[in-house]
Amino acid sequence: MKIVCLGAGNVATHMANAFKENGAEITQVWSRDLATAQALALQIGAEAISDLNDVETFADLYLIAVKDDAIAEVANGLKKINGIVVHTSGATGMDVLQDHKDYGVFYPLQTFSKSQPIDFIHVPLCLEANTEENMTSLQMIAMKLTPLIYEVESKKREILHVAGVFACNFVNHLYTLSHEILKENALDFEMLRPLIMETATKVQEALPEQVQTGPAIRDDIKTISKHEELLSKTPHLQDIYRNLSNSIKKTHS
Amino acid sequence: MKIVCLGAGNVATHMANAFKENGAEITQVWSRDLATAQALALQIGAEAISDLNDVETFADLYLIAVKDDAIAEVANGLKKINGIVVHTSGATGMDVLQDHKDYGVFYPLQTFSKSQPIDFIHVPLCLEANTEENMTSLQMIAMKLTPLIYEVESKKREILHVAGVFACNFVNHLYTLSHEILKENALDFEMLRPLIMETATKVQEALPEQVQTGPAIRDDIKTISKHEELLSKTPHLQDIYRNLSNSIKKTHS
Repeated sequence: MKIVCLGAGNVATHMANAFKENGAEITQVWSRDLATAQALALQIGAEAISDLNDVETFADLYLIAVKDDAIAEVANGLKKINGIVVHTSGATGMDVLQDHKDYGVFYPLQTFSKSQPIDFIHVPLCLEANTEENMTSLQMIAMKLTPLIYEVESKKREILHVAGVFACNFVNHLYTLSHEILKENALDFEMLRPLIMETATKVQEALPEQVQTGPAIRDDIKTISKHEELLSKTPHLQDIYRNLSNSIKKTHS
Repeated sequence: MKIVCLGAGNVATHMANAFKENGAEITQVWSRDLATAQALALQIGAEAISDLNDVETFADLYLIAVKDDAIAEVANGLKKINGIVVHTSGATGMDVLQDHKDYGVFYPLQTFSKSQPIDFIHVPLCLEANTEENMTSLQMIAMKLTPLIYEVESKKREILHVAGVFACNFVNHLYTLSHEILKENALDFEMLRPLIMETATKVQEALPEQVQTGPAIRDDIKTISKHEELLSKTPHLQDIYRNLSNSIKKTHS
């Protein structure tokens, strides 16, 4: 299987490496910036290019893993190619690729860090395709990476993306705020790490609404008041404390 | 080592079992409700009691693991005992125990589920004691359970507790809200579990502010507007989306 990787950022790097490890050949890496393309191309033994006119015409998959705003431009720059063109975006409809004959979406519902490798068996892939035949092809390709394969249309993929903002981006921000609280009091973030890990582990089996704990769900007004007082010098933290405590009460009432 | 366990709820059950597994003897379990005391006592081979006057006088540790509001009453009901009296609360000062000669705090900074066992090597224990000698004793006892031992005074323990509300209770609530978003669109929470796990795993090494991702930190106004529109039928979710997105922008500006 031959894949052309369009993009050389975080997602592109993780996906290209995962494909390579699982026996696919990444023939080319394109990036607007040749040095960026080269950095990834070197890792995976591909050719680095920075001109879309140099993209080869007979790969099986053209993987567009660039910023959302750049997808249309890259897709429209691909001429006379014969494989399936996919993008990897959660927030972008499939129709941005509709000028191609065969196209679809290959959206990894996961967070990628530059520094941290990730095992793709823990990466759900949400697929969409313009024909049933292309869906079957994408499923075959996805199976090389992960058993977690879902068929998800554009509208539902957007929903997944916004749910992911709550479950990942906002969650990480709460970790950041907890670190802010600790720092101001010369306490080490290290102390919270086991709690963070266990909180995520609990919902791997249970549903989160079944395992909610804390003062808000107990309606423990005394503790809530004490916490609000402790946060009185940091009104932005106090606000979020109030909002989320009220939201917990409403959800569970 | 002999321990009397005062309380038979979630925290008491996890701690009593952990002590037992690590070679301590739980001689008695007290609960206001005898049947509740018996349920735990049976698990760990202890005597069940429901009258504080029946508490034996020569244990090494009297572990008060009851609701915050009940700690004072239980502590005051303990008469003529000779060991160290501790409570396990994050939000309660040590001085609630000051009528005893030897006392302290044994606060596990972790979330416990009724159904899920937890390995105590992942439970940080925050200790406080009224004398240096008692601190040494509590450290010796804590070492039986975990290498994660911290000496934390009452004021800092309160700070840890409120930070824990952000990093655990509020985080779990965000998981709940993400499930709510999925449910309304007939998508399975299962799809988000790997993302949740990876988000927690990332901050086991890194600091959360170093690994923040998502539309808010990129100031990706287009995606944020789209998400707000998707949430327009659920104003409580839209509110939280706005608040947390703004908080991310402020924190990282």
